[in-house]
Amino acid sequence: MDYTAAFEAAIDAVRKEGRYRVFANMKRHRGDFPRATWLREDGSEQEVTVWCSNDYLGQGQNPVVLDAMHTAIDEAGSGSGGTRNISGTTWYHNELEAELADLHGKEAALVFSSGYVANEATLTTLYKVLPGLIIFSDALNHASMIAGIRNGGGERHIFRHNDLAHLEELLAAAPVNAPKLIAFESVYSMDGDIADIAGTIALAKKYNALTYIDEVHAVGLYGQRGAGVAERDGVMDQIDIIEGTLGKAFGMMGGYIAGKAAMCDAIRLWASGFIFTTSLPPAVMAGATASVRYLKEHNERRVAHQERAQTLMRRFREAGIPVFPSESHIVPVLVGNPVHCKMISDMLLKDFNIYVQPINYPTVPKGTERLRFTPSPDHTDEMMDELVTAMDKLWSHCNVARMPAVA
Amino acid sequence: MDYTAAFEAAIDAVRKEGRYRVFANMKRHRGDFPRATWLREDGSEQEVTVWCSNDYLGQGQNPVVLDAMHTAIDEAGSGSGGTRNISGTTWYHNELEAELADLHGKEAALVFSSGYVANEATLTTLYKVLPGLIIFSDALNHASMIAGIRNGGGERHIFRHNDLAHLEELLAAAPVNAPKLIAFESVYSMDGDIADIAGTIALAKKYNALTYIDEVHAVGLYGQRGAGVAERDGVMDQIDIIEGTLGKAFGMMGGYIAGKAAMCDAIRLWASGFIFTTSLPPAVMAGATASVRYLKEHNERRVAHQERAQTLMRRFREAGIPVFPSESHIVPVLVGNPVHCKMISDMLLKDFNIYVQPINYPTVPKGTERLRFTPSPDHTDEMMDELVTAMDKLWSHCNVARMPAVA
Repeated sequence: MDYTAAFEAAIDAVRKEGRYRVFANMKRHRGDFPRATWLREDGSEQEVTVWCSNDYLGQGQNPVVLDAMHTAIDEAGSGSGGTRNISGTTWYHNELEAELADLHGKEAALVFSSGYVANEATLTTLYKVLPGLIIFSDALNHASMIAGIRNGGGERHIFRHNDLAHLEELLAAAPVNAPKLIAFESVYSMDGDIADIAGTIALAKKYNALTYIDEVHAVGLYGQRGAGVAERDGVMDQIDIIEGTLGKAFGMMGGYIAGKAAMCDAIRLWASGFIFTTSLPPAVMAGATASVRYLKEHNERRVAHQERAQTLMRRFREAGIPVFPSESHIVPVLVGNPVHCKMISDMLLKDFNIYVQPINYPTVPKGTERLRFTPSPDHTDEMMDELVTAMDKLWSHCNVARMPAVA
Repeated sequence: MDYTAAFEAAIDAVRKEGRYRVFANMKRHRGDFPRATWLREDGSEQEVTVWCSNDYLGQGQNPVVLDAMHTAIDEAGSGSGGTRNISGTTWYHNELEAELADLHGKEAALVFSSGYVANEATLTTLYKVLPGLIIFSDALNHASMIAGIRNGGGERHIFRHNDLAHLEELLAAAPVNAPKLIAFESVYSMDGDIADIAGTIALAKKYNALTYIDEVHAVGLYGQRGAGVAERDGVMDQIDIIEGTLGKAFGMMGGYIAGKAAMCDAIRLWASGFIFTTSLPPAVMAGATASVRYLKEHNERRVAHQERAQTLMRRFREAGIPVFPSESHIVPVLVGNPVHCKMISDMLLKDFNIYVQPINYPTVPKGTERLRFTPSPDHTDEMMDELVTAMDKLWSHCNVARMPAVA
C-alpha cells in the first residue's frame, strides 16, 4: 500500500474533472471593502475588486464591530481558554446569546463554532433527544444539514427542492404519532431562490412537525431588524428552530440556533459538537454582538443591498448574460462546465482585476457550474460598469451561451 | 407529540444523574491571569482563581499575541468573508499554515474551525480517499475522533487504552493489503497519561499502517520548540498525520493537521467540514501565528509549567488527596460521583474563590467523576497554598475517600 500514491490519486480524480481548487490568496484592507490585494503565486501583487464575498454588507469593515473586538481583546485577552463547560463561558458569550434570542424573538439561543457545526450538531442531536424522529429535508439543503441528518442515523426523507406537494406526500405517509421535523433553508445560497416559509409552516402544523430553518444567507439581510426572511414574511414566531451564522452578513464567524429554552438546553447538554470544543474567543463574541445590534437598527443597509443586487441582475440581463432567476441578493450566472468556469474566473482576475471564484461540484451539481456574484452596498456603479463590460467581452471571447437580451 | 415535554424529558434525564451542567459565567482580565471575575446568577460578582483553563501557558494574555490580533483587525477587518475557496483565504491563513508545517517538520498543514472539526473532518474523509481503510482507534480517544471514525462509516477496531499488545493483535488479524490507520492521542487530557508513541510507530511500520496522532493537549507544551510529545520523544518525523489545536496552549482557537503535502491536499479537496464553512478571521490567524512563533522560542515557559504541575501533584499527594498517576501537566483528582463532584466544585467556588469545573459523564466514564486542575506557570505558591488548604478542608467536610499521604 503506497499511501502517498493513494492521496495523489484522490487529488487527480478531482483534477481530471477540471475542478481542482486553487485558493486565491487575498488581503482585504480595512476601510477599503470591496477592494483587496491579490498575492499571485509568483509573489507579485495585484489590486482587485472582490465580487464573491459573503460579507454581504461589509460589516467586516464596520468600525463599530472592530472597536468591539479591540475592546474585548484589551479587557479579556485572546482565546476563551476552554470549552463552554470548562472555564470557556464568558460574559461575552452570554451577552451574544441573549442578543440573538432577542433578534429572533425566541426564549434562548446557543452559539457554536460555525454555522456548519450548528447544523451538524443540532440535527444529529435531535435524533437522540427525540427518539423515533423522522426528518424531512429539502433536496438542496446545505452540506452541513445533510451531514447532521446522515450522521444522526435516524429515518429521513428528502423532498424535491421547494416542492411542498412532495413534502406533504411524505408527511402524510409517515406514522401520525412519530416526532417529525422539516429541515429547510430560507435563501438557497447557490441559486438565490427563497422557500415558501408560510406554506411550510402550514404543513408542519397540519402534521404536527417541528420546523428547522437555516437562515444563514438571510440573517442581517432581511426583515426590519435583520432577523431573516421569516421576519420579513411575518412568520418568525411560528418557526421552532432558527439556525443562523455570524460569519456572513454579520461579518464575523460562528453559528447559532434560536428557539424555545428547553430545546436549546437539551441541545446544550447532548450535542457532542457543542460540548467537546473550545468556545469562541471573547473578541469574536463581542464583535458579533456589536454587529447584530448595529444591523437591527440600520435597515437602510439592507435597502441599499437589495438595490445593488437588483441593478446588477438587470444589467447582466440587458447584456444577455445568463443570470439565474434569483429572488434574493445572490446573482448567479450559469456557465455549465467546470473547465470554462475556472477559465473565465481566471481571466476576470488576471485581465480585469475582478475576483469571483468559480463554483463547481461538490458545491453545486455537475452541469450547473457557475459564477456567483454578491454585490454589496459598497459596490459602486463604476465597479458594475467594469464588471459587465468584462463579462460581455469574455462571453464573446469564450463563446459561452447567452440568454436573449431583455430591455 | 408534545415536543417541549420531550425536550424537558431529555434534560431531566441528565438532571436525575446529577450531571446537569451549569456554565460558570466568567470574565478574565487581560494581564491578570489566572484571576477572573465570576458573575453569579444573582448578578453579584466575586473574584476567583481559575484552576481549570486549557490556556495552559497563559498565552491568551501574552501581549505578543494580542498585538498581532489588534494589528490584523486594523489591517484587514473582522471576519474573512467567505469559505477558504470562496474569498476566505488570506495571507494570514497561508502564513499560519506555513508556520505550523514548520513547527512539525512537515510538508504542509491545513487549518480547520476547531480541533474537533479537524479530527471529525479528517478521519471521516480518510475513509473516502483511502477506499477500504481500516481505522484502529484507542478506546479513550476524544469524542471528535470517535465522531469522525463513526461518521466515516468504514471498518474500525477499538484497542484497549494504550495497550499495544491488543493493538498488534487487531492489526495482525486484518488483511495484509488493506489500508490501515492507527488513531491515538499523545496526552490523554482527562487522565494525564501519555501514549507510547515510538512503540505505536514500530507497530505501524510492521503492519504498514498510517499513524494519526492527536496532540491537542501537547502542542506548545512539549518538545524543544513546543511541537508536542512526538517532538520531545524524537519521533515526530515518523508520524504521518499530526493533529493539533490553536485553542489551548496557543491561547487562541482553531485546529489543524500537518503531514505530507499530498495528504493535506486530498483532505482540503474532499473534506465537507473543511470546504463548506467560513474560514477563521484574520485576527485569529495572526494571533495564532504569533503565539506559535513565541512558544517555539520560549522553552522556559514549558519548564516552568512542568514544575508547577509536579509541585501541585506532590502537594496533593502529601495531603492525601487522590491524584491520578498523571505523567503530564494535567492534575486530575478522583471524586467518583457526579453529585459529590458538583458539590465540591460549588463549595470551592463559593466559599474559597477557587474555580475548577466538575468533570462528569459524558466527558469521563461514569464512576470516575473528577476535578481536573491545570496549573500554569502563573499559578503562584500562594495560590497553591489556598487550593490545598481548601481541598483538605472539603475532603474532610464531605468525607471523600483519601489516599495514604506520601511524604
